Amino acid sequence: MTLLFCSAFDDAAGYERAMAARLPDMPVRVYPDTGPPEAVTYAMVWRPPLGLLPSLPNLRAVFNLGAGVDGILSDSDVPDDVPVIRLADAGMAPQMVEWVLHGVLRFHRRFDEYEVEQAARRWTRLAVAPAGRTRVGLMGLGVLGQAVARQLTALGYAVRGWSRRPKTVDGVACFNGRDGLDAFLAETDILVCLLPLTRETRAILNRDTLGRLPRGACLINAARGGHLVDADLIALLDKDHLRGAQLDVFDPEPLPADHPFWSHPRIRVTPHVAAVTLIEPACDQIADIIRRLERGEAPAQAVDRTAGY
Amino acid sequence: MTLLFCSAFDDAAGYERAMAARLPDMPVRVYPDTGPPEAVTYAMVWRPPLGLLPSLPNLRAVFNLGAGVDGILSDSDVPDDVPVIRLADAGMAPQMVEWVLHGVLRFHRRFDEYEVEQAARRWTRLAVAPAGRTRVGLMGLGVLGQAVARQLTALGYAVRGWSRRPKTVDGVACFNGRDGLDAFLAETDILVCLLPLTRETRAILNRDTLGRLPRGACLINAARGGHLVDADLIALLDKDHLRGAQLDVFDPEPLPADHPFWSHPRIRVTPHVAAVTLIEPACDQIADIIRRLERGEAPAQAVDRTAGY
Repeated sequence: MTLLFCSAFDDAAGYERAMAARLPDMPVRVYPDTGPPEAVTYAMVWRPPLGLLPSLPNLRAVFNLGAGVDGILSDSDVPDDVPVIRLADAGMAPQMVEWVLHGVLRFHRRFDEYEVEQAARRWTRLAVAPAGRTRVGLMGLGVLGQAVARQLTALGYAVRGWSRRPKTVDGVACFNGRDGLDAFLAETDILVCLLPLTRETRAILNRDTLGRLPRGACLINAARGGHLVDADLIALLDKDHLRGAQLDVFDPEPLPADHPFWSHPRIRVTPHVAAVTLIEPACDQIADIIRRLERGEAPAQAVDRTAGY
Repeated sequence: MTLLFCSAFDDAAGYERAMAARLPDMPVRVYPDTGPPEAVTYAMVWRPPLGLLPSLPNLRAVFNLGAGVDGILSDSDVPDDVPVIRLADAGMAPQMVEWVLHGVLRFHRRFDEYEVEQAARRWTRLAVAPAGRTRVGLMGLGVLGQAVARQLTALGYAVRGWSRRPKTVDGVACFNGRDGLDAFLAETDILVCLLPLTRETRAILNRDTLGRLPRGACLINAARGGHLVDADLIALLDKDHLRGAQLDVFDPEPLPADHPFWSHPRIRVTPHVAAVTLIEPACDQIADIIRRLERGEAPAQAVDRTAGY
């Protein structure tokens, strides 16, 4: 039995070394050097080529090297009987907390507006509401969303959360479902999207929903580009309904060189770097789950392929 | 006995109301409507005019409306026998934590460099060290410095601290005195200045000290403009020894319109807004200390006028 690595984005040699140290009896093969297809029992992948996974007849599980599984579910062809395993938090949560927190502080403390004042050489003091009266709304209350909520709560922000199904998170005013969305949006000053991308959440950040935010609200998107209708964001910024946006994810990626986001004065772009999967914690989890599967236990952290996350 | 308010910068009516609610028996006068000089027993001031305080023969204490007392000690004429009281933390610590944290995240997560990439429409991923290998060095470990240290430690940063006298702070590698300064600087990636401005700390951020930081280090100054030699910062940025700076304080203020900081691409300027004194917590402290002084207790939080803080 072998473990197949297939990702053009991640460090193959680093994963190979890290897995060999954890599971010395399981050889690692790096795509395209797949070896005998029938020998491959596990695969760790990011955006594998179509045809690869169905060609492996003895595949017992596929590990997705990233927090979002929308790619592997919609753009690939994992056989129905093979569980897709999501890494719970391969070192991503602290990074996501940092990236989101930068945006929250930037907008709350008006650094975006101070940049405009600086360019005009103006010494202008702007009023700032205390954190307790600054309402940060998190869409998505999974592992990453809850980590962000904890840190924002510790800093004193008025944290609100929205998820598809009802959830309870300490110190967070929780809303859920389509019925709860309007009330959630109506009192959110800084909106943070950390949702999974599913049929239900695609294009959820659009003219209607973003338009329900209070005038002057800001958007932070660290989930997927497919959540956002790009033209609607630009329209709302340009008519001053929204004040600014910090975006890490785009559809497509890389963001095309002629896309208007690059040059919009009120949009900050980063190239999908908010939270990257780290080799060591990822391999800890993968090795642990493989050991459990080999003992015949049910696969932990398997994705619900109907719900899409 | 009356309480005199004198500040061109703070909200007189707000302070008057807040003090009347706390000490209803003590009339508040707002400068220049001082009333009989001999009736004034307490004064709450920010940069009072020369001659005012010596003209009040029965003054028992002066409250400084701000964290830094360099102004009231060096530029004014408080009689020697009148204690100067500093507010311990009139709502300033959470604000300072936010402002500093923005700078730390900006430099750690390379948002400053991503702005340059965005302007060139380049999708370039930059390597980021984890927080635990990002060394943030705090100069000044008073109330504000310790609040910042706690938050940075909670986020996992490698926090180091420097102060004039030896201090111990949980989770912080502490250095002190001129002897400890070089070792402190040599391993600091992001330097944060929160020192009091005294004879000993004036111009402490200069070509020699900033030059001891590792190549690519960044500076955050939220203390006083007098700590920094402006030309030295610009020289070190321009020869790429330092990468960037986030500055809130200047000498003089407002920062003159022709000052090179305004237009330097690697300097972010805010107009002395990192942490402002908030009326309610300030008045809580002032009322509490006045009550204790009236009971004959020694003045708490009195400034050591020889040390300068």
